[in-house]
Amino acid sequence: MFEILSLKNGIANVDGFFCDAINCGLRPDTKQGDLAYVRSDEVCNIAATYTTNKFCAAPIKHALKYGKSFEGNFVLINAKNANAMTGKRGIEDIEDILSHLPSDLNIVNPVMSSTGVIGYRLPKEKIISGIEKLDFSAKNSDKAANAILTTDSFKKELCFRVKLENGDSFNIAAIAKGAGMINPAMATMLCFVTTDADVPKDDLQELLDVAVAESFNKISVDGDTSTNDTVLLMANAKSGAYDKEAFKVALQKILFELAMMILKDGEGSNKVVAFEVVGAKSDEEAQRAAVNLSNSLLVKTALFGQDPNWGRIASTIGASGIECDEEKLAIYYDDLVIYSSEYPELDSEREEKAYKVMQQDSFKIKCDLGLGDGSYTAYGCDLSYKYVKINAEYRT
Amino acid sequence: MFEILSLKNGIANVDGFFCDAINCGLRPDTKQGDLAYVRSDEVCNIAATYTTNKFCAAPIKHALKYGKSFEGNFVLINAKNANAMTGKRGIEDIEDILSHLPSDLNIVNPVMSSTGVIGYRLPKEKIISGIEKLDFSAKNSDKAANAILTTDSFKKELCFRVKLENGDSFNIAAIAKGAGMINPAMATMLCFVTTDADVPKDDLQELLDVAVAESFNKISVDGDTSTNDTVLLMANAKSGAYDKEAFKVALQKILFELAMMILKDGEGSNKVVAFEVVGAKSDEEAQRAAVNLSNSLLVKTALFGQDPNWGRIASTIGASGIECDEEKLAIYYDDLVIYSSEYPELDSEREEKAYKVMQQDSFKIKCDLGLGDGSYTAYGCDLSYKYVKINAEYRT
Repeated sequence: MFEILSLKNGIANVDGFFCDAINCGLRPDTKQGDLAYVRSDEVCNIAATYTTNKFCAAPIKHALKYGKSFEGNFVLINAKNANAMTGKRGIEDIEDILSHLPSDLNIVNPVMSSTGVIGYRLPKEKIISGIEKLDFSAKNSDKAANAILTTDSFKKELCFRVKLENGDSFNIAAIAKGAGMINPAMATMLCFVTTDADVPKDDLQELLDVAVAESFNKISVDGDTSTNDTVLLMANAKSGAYDKEAFKVALQKILFELAMMILKDGEGSNKVVAFEVVGAKSDEEAQRAAVNLSNSLLVKTALFGQDPNWGRIASTIGASGIECDEEKLAIYYDDLVIYSSEYPELDSEREEKAYKVMQQDSFKIKCDLGLGDGSYTAYGCDLSYKYVKINAEYRT
Repeated sequence: MFEILSLKNGIANVDGFFCDAINCGLRPDTKQGDLAYVRSDEVCNIAATYTTNKFCAAPIKHALKYGKSFEGNFVLINAKNANAMTGKRGIEDIEDILSHLPSDLNIVNPVMSSTGVIGYRLPKEKIISGIEKLDFSAKNSDKAANAILTTDSFKKELCFRVKLENGDSFNIAAIAKGAGMINPAMATMLCFVTTDADVPKDDLQELLDVAVAESFNKISVDGDTSTNDTVLLMANAKSGAYDKEAFKVALQKILFELAMMILKDGEGSNKVVAFEVVGAKSDEEAQRAAVNLSNSLLVKTALFGQDPNWGRIASTIGASGIECDEEKLAIYYDDLVIYSSEYPELDSEREEKAYKVMQQDSFKIKCDLGLGDGSYTAYGCDLSYKYVKINAEYRT
């Protein structure tokens, strides 16, 4: 037994962790930071998950020199420039920048993390000058959470205290950015998790991989997978407390809640919809159908229009290439059956009810294929004019 | 050697073919037809290509009773109702409707073709009453071409005369509808091709499959594949003329030009873009990258915004899972190199040139992966506010 409590404040509300952010001139609006760091005074076990994009950005290539799991205690984060498609010089720029970190902080294996436009070298001098303005003993969680955002409309920050049965407790906290290019495997997002739990090295990567599969890898804003996606989990062991099951649950909870915040803040998104596929021949087939539903433009625009046009749901399942049978299919909006062999045509009464379900900020579309035990849930959002506007004008 | 001439008028400008359309009350705007037919006075060899959607609509299930290739001479086409997800009753409705065709026309193996909303039975009585109003000896190509449209903004109709070296000639003509749900394998589209060429049965399906692969299966408006896609090719042999190579070229030309018209008229589309991928490890890898480019929301919105943001092109290729190497990649907008290891960063001069390329109604984005001989070209369009508007409001 264990208890999970929500705390205010963020990643620095964990013993031994510090963070800060300043504006070093990458972002025109100087009120918001564009250069942040997260560090621990003790060396941490670190586990990481990175994008599957073959053109992964320079900061990921640089960090992977230490392997996915490594020991370290420092990450420097910049906004507005992805340092992607910058070749070897992109990696050399990172090494140069990180060589300017203060020498009195006992920094071990520092890494960088970047988001922004692809194809331009980092403005190295601005960042190096910015490092001098950072307060390395600050606990400015809020500034760091805001500095990493791009087209996000609100900051994403959570902190939990986990109380174990034996009276011990540890904290776990995280900040994330998301908004666009959100797709399974993984979202275009950065997420930094800090914990003072005493997590064994072997558990750390295993539990992170499971938690990412159950959270960020289940959401899609637009089906695009970026060059820079990163989840970095730093555990400094300071609390001396640990319970594998409790840590697993707390880590999944924090990442899942952040994933839902990212989806809610998807570019131009008004609704978060869970696409639950059950009764498939296999979990893989269920996943394929659920992910296709979460990415279908026709489904996403019908969600925006609040149109209970279940034909687009059926058509997307049929087009996904999985085994399916229209006599066995049933589609539900929350608990309302909207199509089944018993209710093949939508009458005006159920249409009215369906419309009410769709007016909610979040609801579930469940598809029972009636063929087997395979199941999967993917999470998506609607597609609005605003998405088009944001992405047509992003760079300019 | 042979010559291909463009003729005015459409599918009825072929010896022995007749067509007409009327409004039978399916479409509120009674000035536009909603019920059309195409027939030949002689029995034809017919070849067909249908959607790969597992929930294919009742008219396709009905037609497949004759096999993909069959002998016949009549197709009845309705708009506004897809007769999809209607179970056995959907097929029975077709059989009932077709039993009301005039008995004096020597109709053999008649089929139906439908587009519109999924999940409602056909308004059978309206269609049966409508049949009585059709003129079965008319050659109203224009009415038929207009009646089959849904969200299309213009009719798609072509007719060619093919003159062979020996002095023989045949005609080939086609009408199509497209607009939304356009995706490789195949577009949501209907296309009806008539010809008086004397095509042997064995050639007909073979040449249609090749021509569809080179045309409709290369275009994407929104990545969705409908339940009703159909291409029907009717050859009545009346000209007595045939040359396999000439017929192959003419059929590919007519389907490719219709495919480009469909893309140009993609819902809310302003631009037609060819995504040419060369230098891939294999044709399959080139196809995967090209199709992903044509479907990427971030690429499509950048096209709409006329933003030479090649990072989205690179990111989409990297995310497609194919083998690629940023040192070997080169990206061109028409003939302008926009990224290569020699030009890693876009300067303002080339950015200005790229912007000019993007202002065109159609242009090419070429990606050379520099790894092998694999190549493929997919065709797509931009994503505008109007697409969202059309599809959020489609049913209502």
